[in-house]
Amino acid sequence: MIRKPLIYNYNNVLAHNVGNRTGISTEEILSYERRTKRIHESLAAEREGGTLPFYDLPEKKGDLKEIKKLGEEIKKEMGDRLENLLVIGIGGSSLGGIAVTRALCHPFYNLLPHETRKTPRIFFAENIDPDEITGLFDIIDPETTLVNVISKSGSTAEPMANFLLFQKHMIDKIGEERYKHRVIATTDPKSGTMREIANDLGLRTLKVPPGVGGRFSVLSQVGLFPAYMAGVDIDALAAGASAMVKRLNTDDLLKNPAYLNAVIHYHLHIKKGVNMAVLMPYSTALAEVAGWYRQLLAESLGKKFAQSGEIVYCGQTPIKAVGAVDQHSQIQLYREGPEDKIITILSVENFKNFLNIPSLYKEFEGISYLGGHTLNELFEAEKRATAHALVKSQRPVLEITLPEINPYTLGQLFYFYEVQTVFAGCLYNVNPLDQPGVEAGKQYTYSLLGRKGYEDVWKKEVGPEESDPTYIIR
Amino acid sequence: MIRKPLIYNYNNVLAHNVGNRTGISTEEILSYERRTKRIHESLAAEREGGTLPFYDLPEKKGDLKEIKKLGEEIKKEMGDRLENLLVIGIGGSSLGGIAVTRALCHPFYNLLPHETRKTPRIFFAENIDPDEITGLFDIIDPETTLVNVISKSGSTAEPMANFLLFQKHMIDKIGEERYKHRVIATTDPKSGTMREIANDLGLRTLKVPPGVGGRFSVLSQVGLFPAYMAGVDIDALAAGASAMVKRLNTDDLLKNPAYLNAVIHYHLHIKKGVNMAVLMPYSTALAEVAGWYRQLLAESLGKKFAQSGEIVYCGQTPIKAVGAVDQHSQIQLYREGPEDKIITILSVENFKNFLNIPSLYKEFEGISYLGGHTLNELFEAEKRATAHALVKSQRPVLEITLPEINPYTLGQLFYFYEVQTVFAGCLYNVNPLDQPGVEAGKQYTYSLLGRKGYEDVWKKEVGPEESDPTYIIR
Repeated sequence: MIRKPLIYNYNNVLAHNVGNRTGISTEEILSYERRTKRIHESLAAEREGGTLPFYDLPEKKGDLKEIKKLGEEIKKEMGDRLENLLVIGIGGSSLGGIAVTRALCHPFYNLLPHETRKTPRIFFAENIDPDEITGLFDIIDPETTLVNVISKSGSTAEPMANFLLFQKHMIDKIGEERYKHRVIATTDPKSGTMREIANDLGLRTLKVPPGVGGRFSVLSQVGLFPAYMAGVDIDALAAGASAMVKRLNTDDLLKNPAYLNAVIHYHLHIKKGVNMAVLMPYSTALAEVAGWYRQLLAESLGKKFAQSGEIVYCGQTPIKAVGAVDQHSQIQLYREGPEDKIITILSVENFKNFLNIPSLYKEFEGISYLGGHTLNELFEAEKRATAHALVKSQRPVLEITLPEINPYTLGQLFYFYEVQTVFAGCLYNVNPLDQPGVEAGKQYTYSLLGRKGYEDVWKKEVGPEESDPTYIIR
Repeated sequence: MIRKPLIYNYNNVLAHNVGNRTGISTEEILSYERRTKRIHESLAAEREGGTLPFYDLPEKKGDLKEIKKLGEEIKKEMGDRLENLLVIGIGGSSLGGIAVTRALCHPFYNLLPHETRKTPRIFFAENIDPDEITGLFDIIDPETTLVNVISKSGSTAEPMANFLLFQKHMIDKIGEERYKHRVIATTDPKSGTMREIANDLGLRTLKVPPGVGGRFSVLSQVGLFPAYMAGVDIDALAAGASAMVKRLNTDDLLKNPAYLNAVIHYHLHIKKGVNMAVLMPYSTALAEVAGWYRQLLAESLGKKFAQSGEIVYCGQTPIKAVGAVDQHSQIQLYREGPEDKIITILSVENFKNFLNIPSLYKEFEGISYLGGHTLNELFEAEKRATAHALVKSQRPVLEITLPEINPYTLGQLFYFYEVQTVFAGCLYNVNPLDQPGVEAGKQYTYSLLGRKGYEDVWKKEVGPEESDPTYIIR
């Protein structure tokens, strides 16, 4: 496992390379130096005061120990019958685990034979799509399934509905006593509906650390238990994050890639109207890291606030793309569409495998040049070519390079983006830890389902007639 | 199979419902009536003249017949040994097939036992990620695999590299003679490298219809052969598209949902700065329809052109989201972030399955309200709640309702979006069928790999030093 730091390259967001319209000058960057020092100080104080506990997750060795102890206990109990791990959770409860396992497991992990895999298949029940959940019932046998339900409060409708459905499905087949040994509840250590249910049933539990929101929980037991069960080296993941903790402990803007990344994105948004931030890994395995990033940014920075009587709406829209696939889907727009995007290419220096493209069809000029190269060389060439084509069109491009996709580099990357997001929250002057905008939708749902105390909300807010048929084409 | 038309509801983009800042008034809509008639006429003329052949794909019964004949031939030849269909293609060559099969097959199709599935597992080799392709080698056995390589020209680097790699992999195991019977090449009917290779090897072929670009090819043999092999009723798919052909054959803006959809998106982009168009199906199965839409819009409308000496960049950025999952990831931003998005909710009226949420834990108020409802009701309630919460924040929301997810409704949906995209191209005054912006990246790649005639391109464009180490943090 290569244990080297991520490389952060910001050449191609600089105005002297991509022009003034979409670039940032070195002077503009330096103009944030004093503010950076102030924010660094206030974040350090908050961290010290315990209001930003996600900062210290990489050092929680005790949490890792608990995961390993519990994981080994279960492996011993279930033995070869541990064929499926079903993770029930949504949003921050699932996106971290998905990102880690997709990045680090075999690309067709669930299709591998049990003997090769040795660890259980992993399913994430996120959505409440009746066809998808029925499909899961078809696939996973209660006899060989471990459930990990993840919900801080136990009152989020989607995971709780799925929890109830799978509970009945499993108890019907294996009975209540055995079921109780097949559920791990990851929840608040003290309070909430899920904690109470776990206590009532006598379930084994892990914790959502107090004060850590879902989108900052990938390096806690929320993201790490599923990862451990899938065979991921969670110590290396924490070690990578720890290395990033140290690296980011500087108020020198030009040496702190997380702060610099926040400044560049913020400045281009506020000053240049760049309202989209694309994360484009050149790696299929890293696609879901971009999915995780998408939530982290959107919920943390997509905020409104009042300023001198006016409402200000802020936050770039994070966009997930994947190279080289999206060259054939999005690059036309990224190069020749509006100048409204900054693109971060996630580069991988070393893949696990090399593939030699065979030299066949030498008579066909349109294909013969491929032979003799590795697929790795082609992938690398396409990435460089795309980055340069974007720069040529004066589109700002950042590049973050992982020496290899492994737990250590992934740990760095998660922590990097968490810190950059919290720092960006300070630049925008919003609270990156809350999400007040999702409350209304929850209340309307409760009302539509007749939850006590919410019966009238929908009627009051919407009234009986929702859509005027004049504006419906049937 | 329910054969009913899609319902298009535009109440919640109207200014009298979401306000003037992000809405469109009925007067503004009507101001496009004359232009609509003109565009309708010119599109009809182009269609008549044969320059828009995608329009007539739903009526090509002969193409469907060829697919079925070939499909049955192969099933007979391979019998029970047809365990894998490997589709090699990228962008428009793969996104249609992916969208159709994900929408219409079992949600965990590739994991079903062969006896249940009866049709082959389906894999799409799109990316040139060495770890992903190596992973595919682990999973698919040449003895039981049919390859469908899709490339109009045969000179796109990614599918050709993968084609060469799998050719060697398969020939090494099953020999050249048997390999030749295991490849279907979907390519230009007359010319191009892939056509020549197919002729040389004596491969069976299907056609990419002349004049139909990848992103408009889902209803051709490109998208329909993989669909057929996965058991999809392709006649119903074509019938749905045909029904939409008829429905859209009117120049009455208020009766033509595709034209109206284009007008609404265009107007909000140009006049209100709404530069993102979100497609958010409330259905896991439809997620990849949003992936298909993402390419269709981006490549068709993301264009630049010169106007009185100034360069104009146009095209909204299409965004793929999935309900209810993204309520816990993107809705905070969509409601309280900048007013830069229009959101289309893809609704499904009837799912295949009903699931009753069990009434358990009656003592816990935060969960007891779920019991007695179906998961379907919860899903529907969340969709309505989210739509209304967005409207409450004055964010424009469209709703397109599919009576059911089936080939007939899907066929309608594809055709609907294709026509709206071509119409939008006329509004922006760009050619929706080309993609000049991807050329530079291709040439740089050729140059980096030393393709004859391109050796100097990279050196001339980039020079030896690409990145100044001053702006790299290591």
